[in-house]
Amino acid sequence: MAAKDGLSTTTSLRVRFNECDPLQIVWHGNYLKYFEEGREEFGRIHGISYMDAKKNRFSTPIVLSHCEHKLPLKYGDRFEIETSFQNSEAAKIIFNYRILKENKLICTGQTVQVFLNEKEELILVNPPFFLDWKQKMGLI
Amino acid sequence: MAAKDGLSTTTSLRVRFNECDPLQIVWHGNYLKYFEEGREEFGRIHGISYMDAKKNRFSTPIVLSHCEHKLPLKYGDRFEIETSFQNSEAAKIIFNYRILKENKLICTGQTVQVFLNEKEELILVNPPFFLDWKQKMGLI
Amino acid sequence: MAAKDGLSTTTSLRVRFNECDPLQIVWHGNYLKYFEEGREEFGRIHGISYMDAKKNRFSTPIVLSHCEHKLPLKYGDRFEIETSFQNSEAAKIIFNYRILKENKLICTGQTVQVFLNEKEELILVNPPFFLDWKQKMGLI
Amino acid sequence: MAAKDGLSTTTSLRVRFNECDPLQIVWHGNYLKYFEEGREEFGRIHGISYMDAKKNRFSTPIVLSHCEHKLPLKYGDRFEIETSFQNSEAAKIIFNYRILKENKLICTGQTVQVFLNEKEELILVNPPFFLDWKQKMGLI
Repeated sequence: MAAKDGLSTTTSLRVRFNECDPLQIVWHGNYLKYFEEGREEFGRIHGISYMDAKKNRFSTPIVLSHCEHKLPLKYGDRFEIETSFQNSEAAKIIFNYRILKENKLICTGQTVQVFLNEKEELILVNPPFFLDWKQKMGLI
Repeated sequence: MAAKDGLSTTTSLRVRFNECDPLQIVWHGNYLKYFEEGREEFGRIHGISYMDAKKNRFSTPIVLSHCEHKLPLKYGDRFEIETSFQNSEAAKIIFNYRILKENKLICTGQTVQVFLNEKEELILVNPPFFLDWKQKMGLI
Repeated sequence: MAAKDGLSTTTSLRVRFNECDPLQIVWHGNYLKYFEEGREEFGRIHGISYMDAKKNRFSTPIVLSHCEHKLPLKYGDRFEIETSFQNSEAAKIIFNYRILKENKLICTGQTVQVFLNEKEELILVNPPFFLDWKQKMGLI
Repeated sequence: MAAKDGLSTTTSLRVRFNECDPLQIVWHGNYLKYFEEGREEFGRIHGISYMDAKKNRFSTPIVLSHCEHKLPLKYGDRFEIETSFQNSEAAKIIFNYRILKENKLICTGQTVQVFLNEKEELILVNPPFFLDWKQKMGLI
């Protein structure tokens, strides 16, 4: 389940009524909320988050989000979000996601984040706090 | 249509697909988005907004929101939001809302906002910028 | 904690990043999502839900929602939603809500639902399935 | 602006307060709402929509959504969504999107939809109503 080159976490959630659309399924855009939920749990468990970046005076906006749907989720469904960190030499934070319900693949996805400094300038080398974290995790 | 003691504006919108729920109607919580849309248009037209408050170092969080539903809105429906400023001596911003579709009343609502200073303390007297605005509008 | 005339449940949640607004606090309209989360957990625990109504060919749209904010919630906050059923002779489903963080009151709220039959007509007497549920719960 | 092999429409919108996140920018997942707004306007103008599919007993769920962010949008910004239909021989509905603010590219994106019949089975050939529409539009 865990990516070979990285770390992963699994988060359990249940579909909320207000996340479903008139087709009686989760509205496609809400999967990005589930990915975020997975990404944030990953951050809490592995000690790397939006707040850690902020403390170090960086922001980490998302520059790419991608989702491929295989099966729908419906109201009340319980499901798992697998969030895997994809190691990369570039100054980017890349996560891959898989959502599963009873071991059936619901969707896959990816987000890519970059680092901006306080002047909102793109940073092309990995900031020290992120390299420190990678080292602690045995990724470099 | 306009409140006797105040000002009002009318905003036209169309129901978005992702605002509807599995009952095929607008999810009840989304009416607060419509009220906000009305309130912001009121602010743009009459020169009083979240940004004006911010410029004067106040924030204006909502402390009460209320909505009573008479009829549902469905996907694709066009509707009007009437936003009326309710004048009050208290240090509060009170708006009343009516949403109508083809002259039928869909719902009514109210929001109440207060003033917080930069230390996030509640301000019990109307801030000067707000009194200035009221005077300009002929409300005091 | 439980209402004298009814039943209640407590649900634990954490604030999601995407539920916060530019003021760095939970956007006021999102409390209606939390109330819904509480109401649905109540339904799962006590055997009364949107799906039970649907099975019996009723829908139970919300006709009133109300929220009063005392303190803000911020990104990452953990909180509890107390959902209490308010018994009523009228053909209505009334829930009262309290959201707490570390025993501090964040907000209170209420929702009222009515019964519509398959023709979307308002039903003025309690449907049998709802009376059965009330009896089972010792409410009548 | 219009795709060579297809049709396009442009939709104007303004960023809503509740679409922005604590970073003071539009939350990345909300761009899928803007794409949907563009896609629906395309449907209204060119006579092809979720409702047309439904009338013909098909549903058209999204199986892929993709967004690449170049620049952020902030509260109050006005912007344009360009929605272009990408012609394809496969039984798919493909739209490409570009969001622009004052002629600066904010993001690009794509959605892919497929056809399901009433039994929720994937249809591998274009349904007659969709071929009729393509012919009327001069796409085949």
